[in-house]
Amino acid sequence: MPETGTARGDPARGPQDRFIIVSNRGPVTFSREEGGGRTYSRGAGGLVTALNAMARNRDAVWIASATSGEDVVVAREEEPVEIGDLTVDLVEHDPEAYELMYNHVANPLLWFVQHGIYDLPYSPRLGDDTRRAWEGYEEVNRNFARAAADAAVRAAESGEEPVVLLHDYQLYMVPGSLREGLRGTAAEGAFVSLFVHIPWPDPGYWRILPQGMREGILESLLQCDVLAFHTEGYARCFLDTVSEVLGAEVDLEGRGIQYRGRETRVRAYPISIDPAEFSGLAESEAVLAEEEYVQNLPGSLLLRVDRLDLSKNVLRGFLAYGRMLERYPHMRERVTFLAQLQPSRGSITEYARYSDAVRQAVEEINGAHRTPSWEPVILSLEDNFLRSVAAYKNYDALLVNAVRDGMNLVAKEAAVVNRRDGVLVLSETAGAHEELGEHALTVNPFDLDEQADALHRALIMDPVERRSRAQSLRASVERNTVDDWVEAQMTDIAALRGHSRRGSS
Amino acid sequence: MPETGTARGDPARGPQDRFIIVSNRGPVTFSREEGGGRTYSRGAGGLVTALNAMARNRDAVWIASATSGEDVVVAREEEPVEIGDLTVDLVEHDPEAYELMYNHVANPLLWFVQHGIYDLPYSPRLGDDTRRAWEGYEEVNRNFARAAADAAVRAAESGEEPVVLLHDYQLYMVPGSLREGLRGTAAEGAFVSLFVHIPWPDPGYWRILPQGMREGILESLLQCDVLAFHTEGYARCFLDTVSEVLGAEVDLEGRGIQYRGRETRVRAYPISIDPAEFSGLAESEAVLAEEEYVQNLPGSLLLRVDRLDLSKNVLRGFLAYGRMLERYPHMRERVTFLAQLQPSRGSITEYARYSDAVRQAVEEINGAHRTPSWEPVILSLEDNFLRSVAAYKNYDALLVNAVRDGMNLVAKEAAVVNRRDGVLVLSETAGAHEELGEHALTVNPFDLDEQADALHRALIMDPVERRSRAQSLRASVERNTVDDWVEAQMTDIAALRGHSRRGSS
Repeated sequence: MPETGTARGDPARGPQDRFIIVSNRGPVTFSREEGGGRTYSRGAGGLVTALNAMARNRDAVWIASATSGEDVVVAREEEPVEIGDLTVDLVEHDPEAYELMYNHVANPLLWFVQHGIYDLPYSPRLGDDTRRAWEGYEEVNRNFARAAADAAVRAAESGEEPVVLLHDYQLYMVPGSLREGLRGTAAEGAFVSLFVHIPWPDPGYWRILPQGMREGILESLLQCDVLAFHTEGYARCFLDTVSEVLGAEVDLEGRGIQYRGRETRVRAYPISIDPAEFSGLAESEAVLAEEEYVQNLPGSLLLRVDRLDLSKNVLRGFLAYGRMLERYPHMRERVTFLAQLQPSRGSITEYARYSDAVRQAVEEINGAHRTPSWEPVILSLEDNFLRSVAAYKNYDALLVNAVRDGMNLVAKEAAVVNRRDGVLVLSETAGAHEELGEHALTVNPFDLDEQADALHRALIMDPVERRSRAQSLRASVERNTVDDWVEAQMTDIAALRGHSRRGSS
Repeated sequence: MPETGTARGDPARGPQDRFIIVSNRGPVTFSREEGGGRTYSRGAGGLVTALNAMARNRDAVWIASATSGEDVVVAREEEPVEIGDLTVDLVEHDPEAYELMYNHVANPLLWFVQHGIYDLPYSPRLGDDTRRAWEGYEEVNRNFARAAADAAVRAAESGEEPVVLLHDYQLYMVPGSLREGLRGTAAEGAFVSLFVHIPWPDPGYWRILPQGMREGILESLLQCDVLAFHTEGYARCFLDTVSEVLGAEVDLEGRGIQYRGRETRVRAYPISIDPAEFSGLAESEAVLAEEEYVQNLPGSLLLRVDRLDLSKNVLRGFLAYGRMLERYPHMRERVTFLAQLQPSRGSITEYARYSDAVRQAVEEINGAHRTPSWEPVILSLEDNFLRSVAAYKNYDALLVNAVRDGMNLVAKEAAVVNRRDGVLVLSETAGAHEELGEHALTVNPFDLDEQADALHRALIMDPVERRSRAQSLRASVERNTVDDWVEAQMTDIAALRGHSRRGSS
């Protein structure tokens, strides 16, 4: 245990916590203005928003990768940067190691394994390239671990209790490396958790990874006090995986793992959004300016908003819509499918091929059904967040039919700002289904006719049922906001640490 | 419980068992000779051999589908056919229902789900076609259930105890239908088991199926007293699946399931071969005639023998071999890779595409490395079992690198007749790995370089290690022959029935 000095703690309440948040992407990216001054832009996206909520009003440092040239300058300075009440500590990586971590391990391999989207008779083709890429991943992770250990030791030496909160699948090897770095220091007893923001697969799928990775990652993760996931389902899959791959002793009921003398708790905290942020945004001039476009689309509005990823099931979504138009011809000219798809990872072959297949499906549907006054599908392949929010306000039906999806925040964002009692058609394999499924129309993402029927049912649903479902959806999101998400974790951390302090005294 | 008459039972030992074996393919196919007489040919393949061992020396009837025109004539006759001491009872199906069962549900859908070989972003595309095909599957299964119920009732009414042994993934709906058919009859207490001869997938993969199928199949299977698989791993996956999909109460340690008042035991019985059959065959004139060809191939012999199925990983096997030739150039002209691949399911698009990819890979390797006196790969796309047995006797290394494989009997057949202390390179995801893994070189089927290195290691292994491994392999197969496989099941059945009789008295 660290010494309990009181430099910053309240002596009456014991030492104060020092939160050390670590994620690959940070809250800001620095750049240099033409005039020579340093400036920064804030990161966007669900995870950064959530981690900002985690850092807010806490004594926190946020460690992240230096990604711009100016980031690297910042990383090389002695002291971390203070931005408002947040301390940002950037870590410089060897560019080749970072490339290997990001573009050879995390995004193709781990993403594909954890979303179950390999065509196994053909891919992956693992080998020595994979092992070389893995060395890059490990190097980047050692950099993070070193920075986290430094921050933890500094905190402990000034009488604070370090709480290290690691985030996501770029950092799986940090816990092991961090525990090594802390051994024999004042921060040896630091609390460490890692939050996995993507699905955890079944054990058989995890075994695709080369042995060194599949066991190495699990052994590192079991150096955490808490492993967190978005759903009970992923937590269960993780327990099954460590049981079957490592032979670790697993308590399925209590969600605990005993391995090499350490106990790791496995917990589910469904991530969420800040409803107030989206309500405000929905009223902003910028969004109001986009609304005219959306409201002028003919007929009811069927919406999807996704990164164009193989896991999102965009292709089957269009095919199902095409079937609906064939099966229910009275729907023609009475609905427009607006698909706001942000292109993504175009340099990966599988993504380019998928994008082509999606475009072709849309052309076929539009070619088969369009009329002079009606385009059945509007495919928007650009990142237009403001238009998406405008569409959130105005959809009659929202399609979220992912093959697999860690959570899917679109379903939550859209539910809180929608004005039309829009109906959510939700895949049972999206993480959001554990929370929202009962208020949505549930679909099997592989079943085209079921999706076609659900889209039709959503679009013709009577107003009373629409309203009841929409209100329940919104209430469900408002009951578990991103602040609640943070609070649930903090409460558990406090309880677990109290427990282990009592246990060790 | 059936009345315990003694028409055929020994009064001192209680009623005699009547075994009712049910499988889609039967032990014989009937035809009519030109002269007008009825004749039959015996079925081949591992499953028919195993079920013959099960029927041998027992009071057994074997119920199977009528597949030929003469089979249908036999099926329509009043009495089952006696062939030696075996009674064969053929069941006629509506041809369309059979087509739906076989070519629309069993072989594409269930096979793909249970082997995990879908390219999920693109396929399957389920829908109403799937549900129509499912009706065909159910109809065929009702036919089987009716025949099995008739046989069970006849047995019970003549004082025997019926033991119904159902086999494989064509018959998943039989248990439920059979229990209904037996209700209120003398055979109501019949013992029912079903043996799944292909892998059981992880729960997430099982969920691909439309809800009606995914739950319907499990509910039917839980009408069995025993569910049998080839490995402990599949048994575990099945328990996880019923726990997660049905919410059934599962005892992971005791391998038992409680569901709707019935207890189902889940057991692993690794299927095997008849070593004497293969030893005899190996000495037959027909095989000796094929040996010259095999022995004249230049260099060491690397062998694979497979049905050309997407699950067998034939493509990566060739790619790994190509890598070996590049990485270890001294192996060139010192090894020939004989691939005996039986074409299969060519009418399914995915198989035709896979077959093309395999051919192309072989052309590239041969094109890159062949010399006037050496062809690196000999690709044989025909069903030449005798040549395969000749090759079994003479391989230096045998590659079994399946993506997933229920058991893989080739590994066992080859081990008992091989004369060169050949080394087995075995995928960790083949069912055979639970029994044979410790004597083989284990590979990750997705890792090309690991397979390349394992092939090289196998081919240059020193004679002492080769001999030791080969002897252990053979001994392992001889310790668990197909007769042992039958015996293990019979012993368990007797014990379970004794138990439930005691339990109910």
